[in-house]
Amino acid sequence: MTTLTPTACIVIIGNEILSGRTQDSNINFLATQLGGAGIPVREVRVIPDVEETIVATINELRPKYTYIFTTGGIGPTHDDITSQCIAKAFGVPLVLDPVAVDLLNAYYQPKGIELNEARLRMAHVPQGARLLENPVSNAPGFCIGNVYVLPGVPRIMQGIFNLLLPSLAGGPPVVMRSVTCFLGEGDLARDLEAIQNRYPMIDIGSYPFQRDGRFATQLVCKGIDAEAVNAANNEVAELVRKLGGVPEVA
Amino acid sequence: MTTLTPTACIVIIGNEILSGRTQDSNINFLATQLGGAGIPVREVRVIPDVEETIVATINELRPKYTYIFTTGGIGPTHDDITSQCIAKAFGVPLVLDPVAVDLLNAYYQPKGIELNEARLRMAHVPQGARLLENPVSNAPGFCIGNVYVLPGVPRIMQGIFNLLLPSLAGGPPVVMRSVTCFLGEGDLARDLEAIQNRYPMIDIGSYPFQRDGRFATQLVCKGIDAEAVNAANNEVAELVRKLGGVPEVA
Repeated sequence: MTTLTPTACIVIIGNEILSGRTQDSNINFLATQLGGAGIPVREVRVIPDVEETIVATINELRPKYTYIFTTGGIGPTHDDITSQCIAKAFGVPLVLDPVAVDLLNAYYQPKGIELNEARLRMAHVPQGARLLENPVSNAPGFCIGNVYVLPGVPRIMQGIFNLLLPSLAGGPPVVMRSVTCFLGEGDLARDLEAIQNRYPMIDIGSYPFQRDGRFATQLVCKGIDAEAVNAANNEVAELVRKLGGVPEVA
Repeated sequence: MTTLTPTACIVIIGNEILSGRTQDSNINFLATQLGGAGIPVREVRVIPDVEETIVATINELRPKYTYIFTTGGIGPTHDDITSQCIAKAFGVPLVLDPVAVDLLNAYYQPKGIELNEARLRMAHVPQGARLLENPVSNAPGFCIGNVYVLPGVPRIMQGIFNLLLPSLAGGPPVVMRSVTCFLGEGDLARDLEAIQNRYPMIDIGSYPFQRDGRFATQLVCKGIDAEAVNAANNEVAELVRKLGGVPEVA
């Protein structure tokens, strides 16, 4: 029996990431959460607030992955053009959603803030879209087809995503184990490749880094077959011992 | 007179970013450095260590941008497949570079570390590639056509990039100024759009965030015409004052 694993692609829409003004944290949050839910992220794109780029990117990607998640560009200002671009990509009009208007009213009225034309932009969604509840500041995200449209502010994005996650059909969760040591990748490489070849269904990655001024390596085994992941990880730990290292097994 | 601005695309090659295991910092470093050198980053992709994906991505992107920068996948282990993929994308063989061998020898020999077959992988480059000096650990990056191939470890990537940067032809540097305030985006939006319309050559972005538990907004003006950027930024500060806010001008 084969289980088809769903896949995800993240599209970060925002000049502020491309200019370096902002350090992105949405990729890491979404990748971690989706991977843990058995929906591995296969690709990420960061693109500018340019209509033709957004439309073309969405239409290129949505047949290729089970789920597309966008972040950014659904606020009230002139540079927030994501919603109209998603509508264009799906060939539907952008419409004022009365439920979204109620949500915005419920948020702004008690604060004495006017629901002006700019803020009403946040109640416009592509025709046929389903609203995604925002537990932080009410202005909803939305979903149309397999495209989930989220805001760029991390705390709000995370609030919407956490409510949405249980509704996504995930595959078997990916199990990950690792061995960290102070051996060089170059000493491990040959035997590590042999282990990889014995466990073709497991993905073994080798990641060098520095700790306490010394070069270290983390060896990561992952896959959906927990038994095989454990067996491969044990072989990696054994390899580290054989080469005189001290494996930190996790 | 029009000046053609060079453009850049960053390709992050690495399963560890897509799985969420690693928080990327290379995008932000490269975007900041390249933008400051007048080479705005127009797109970023994060892709897995999969040969056909890497080859197709590189060949799709290299005609679209002045420069392509890749990070990751040029170490000594079995999952380091970037160099062979770049060679395949350019239709040339992967060859052992004698200068790269000397560089590796000079690094490993004094440490008593064997230059074994795995480490020699790092001396293989696509035929016709130019080596990029690595001031941290000697194993070179390389450049072929308009594609610059860098390692994924941030400190080593940055060392190579900093030496390489002066050789890149940049356009006029982008000037950036900003106004930060505690007004809501929704109150600023209408007049902000009017300012944007008066300065079509300037890019005005609005970025909400939280500080001290309050919603704040940073309004960023950028462009290559410093005088226009300053004038637009002054109008934004004036708008904030008009709406009763206190602009922090930078």
